[in-house]
Amino acid sequence: LRMYPSTYRIATIGGFIGGGSGGIGSITYGQLRDRGNLHAVRVVTMEDEPKVIELRGDDVQKINHAYGTNGIITQLEIPLGPAYPWRELIVNFDDFMTAAKFGQALGNSDGIIKKLICICAWPIPQYFAALRDYLPQEKHSALLIIAEPSLEPFKELVREYGGNISYEKSAEEANKGVAIAEFTWNHTTLHARSVDPSLTYLQTALPPDPNMELLEHLYRHFGDEVMMHLEFSRTNGKVVPLALQIVRYRSEERLNEIISYHEKRGAIIFNPHTYILEDGGMKTVNVEQLEFKKQVDPYGLLNPGKMRGYFEDK
Amino acid sequence: LRMYPSTYRIATIGGFIGGGSGGIGSITYGQLRDRGNLHAVRVVTMEDEPKVIELRGDDVQKINHAYGTNGIITQLEIPLGPAYPWRELIVNFDDFMTAAKFGQALGNSDGIIKKLICICAWPIPQYFAALRDYLPQEKHSALLIIAEPSLEPFKELVREYGGNISYEKSAEEANKGVAIAEFTWNHTTLHARSVDPSLTYLQTALPPDPNMELLEHLYRHFGDEVMMHLEFSRTNGKVVPLALQIVRYRSEERLNEIISYHEKRGAIIFNPHTYILEDGGMKTVNVEQLEFKKQVDPYGLLNPGKMRGYFEDK
Repeated sequence: LRMYPSTYRIATIGGFIGGGSGGIGSITYGQLRDRGNLHAVRVVTMEDEPKVIELRGDDVQKINHAYGTNGIITQLEIPLGPAYPWRELIVNFDDFMTAAKFGQALGNSDGIIKKLICICAWPIPQYFAALRDYLPQEKHSALLIIAEPSLEPFKELVREYGGNISYEKSAEEANKGVAIAEFTWNHTTLHARSVDPSLTYLQTALPPDPNMELLEHLYRHFGDEVMMHLEFSRTNGKVVPLALQIVRYRSEERLNEIISYHEKRGAIIFNPHTYILEDGGMKTVNVEQLEFKKQVDPYGLLNPGKMRGYFEDK
Repeated sequence: LRMYPSTYRIATIGGFIGGGSGGIGSITYGQLRDRGNLHAVRVVTMEDEPKVIELRGDDVQKINHAYGTNGIITQLEIPLGPAYPWRELIVNFDDFMTAAKFGQALGNSDGIIKKLICICAWPIPQYFAALRDYLPQEKHSALLIIAEPSLEPFKELVREYGGNISYEKSAEEANKGVAIAEFTWNHTTLHARSVDPSLTYLQTALPPDPNMELLEHLYRHFGDEVMMHLEFSRTNGKVVPLALQIVRYRSEERLNEIISYHEKRGAIIFNPHTYILEDGGMKTVNVEQLEFKKQVDPYGLLNPGKMRGYFEDK
């Protein structure tokens, strides 16, 4: 698969297309919504007489990331990626901004084949119990998946940034023990919350910022209240960090204050604290998805209350 | 191979590393100098008692793009890319800027697997005799190599930009007849010059310019005197057009005027009209390559007069 979610052990591929936007592999292939990452979908309609519809080409966007509100996905046609022997690695840095810049540089290194670049500021690594032996105190960690033929140039880059490799798992051993992917993306939050349920999280797109000045500002400003977790992925052809910060929850008011502090500085928060489609990532009503819902789900039975455009329209 | 030059029929791989900087495949893998695209080199020294030296990792930069001035390359270790069935296509546009923006959008489409994006403003296509039937008068052409599994989403993008596909050659037919790659990169210039030897060319890196305003300005300002030819490639993780304009030569003075008009606006010209290494692309003396030359070629016998840093040092 070109990309998969950190929940791949329990996820279904239909659920991933319905609810996901990217994941492990996005550092190479971009987002699920990008042309070429989803070729076709078969959906069954929620009508008196159900119909089977095949959507191809740009029409797949009618159901992509629509959370199952507008048709039951029964078949998908997705392209695959080349199968490299993938190595899992952890690299530690003394300084968070060096780790972040290393992540960006690795993302920009087109000659190095990679699948995952996850950067966790200390103290996030302390929540990863199963990897504890490889995560030194007070260090900022990069969790990485790199194609084995690219290891030699990868290690030159690690040397340039003064990183220290503490963990290497070869492709041969990949099926045994812990999978590094399960400590990244939304699993990072899951592990933190399994240790401390008072924690919550945010999803943040940072504006273009080649020197990472805003990132540094946010990292220093909030300290351990908003712990920095970055996932690098390609967006419109550029490698950019998506922040999935882990937040020490104090109150709804304080959470909204944190969100607005980000938004005032140009960072876009995809609020994960709502079950309504448009209030989270999308912000606006997707007219194409709304029209498709009216067509295939005339009684509004699929995931009711999820699509604001639909119930406000009613 | 991850990348190869348009001269691949006659080129040697050692010559490509010695003299090349990228080529067909650079739209995915970046430049030859990027970490990961050249793993190791074996060079034989030009001493009384020749030595065999292996350079690995970042040390390969000592000979990469040094034009054979500092050691005889006898062996290379380079990574390969996945073998897709590659389709060759020509897409035509009414308007040059639409063609250029299509090229950028295709380059930014991470879900579409591609090997070549070459955009030729009219009248350049008229120099491609062997493809004449597929290059309509007054149209601006994109010469492309796309992985066949990505064709369907690729064609959606062509539709979005109002392009017209005039030529498609499947991977199965790839060994027969003309190869589209041989009309791109420096072969574009070669074909133009074979029709009209008074033509010459430039190599230009455009500064960051998301709206392509400078490109449009240069295209309109010079008209047919400087015919626009773009090759898209990844540079430091971003897809950017490299311009290999075909110039109607009038005089050295006028050529220098054209160059300085570009440079004043932030475009960097890698002057191909010099045989001296530092006066072309590199501009500055590469101290690492110079030191390596002193070590392996103490009598200065390899490609004498090519490396300014060396003969000025003498």
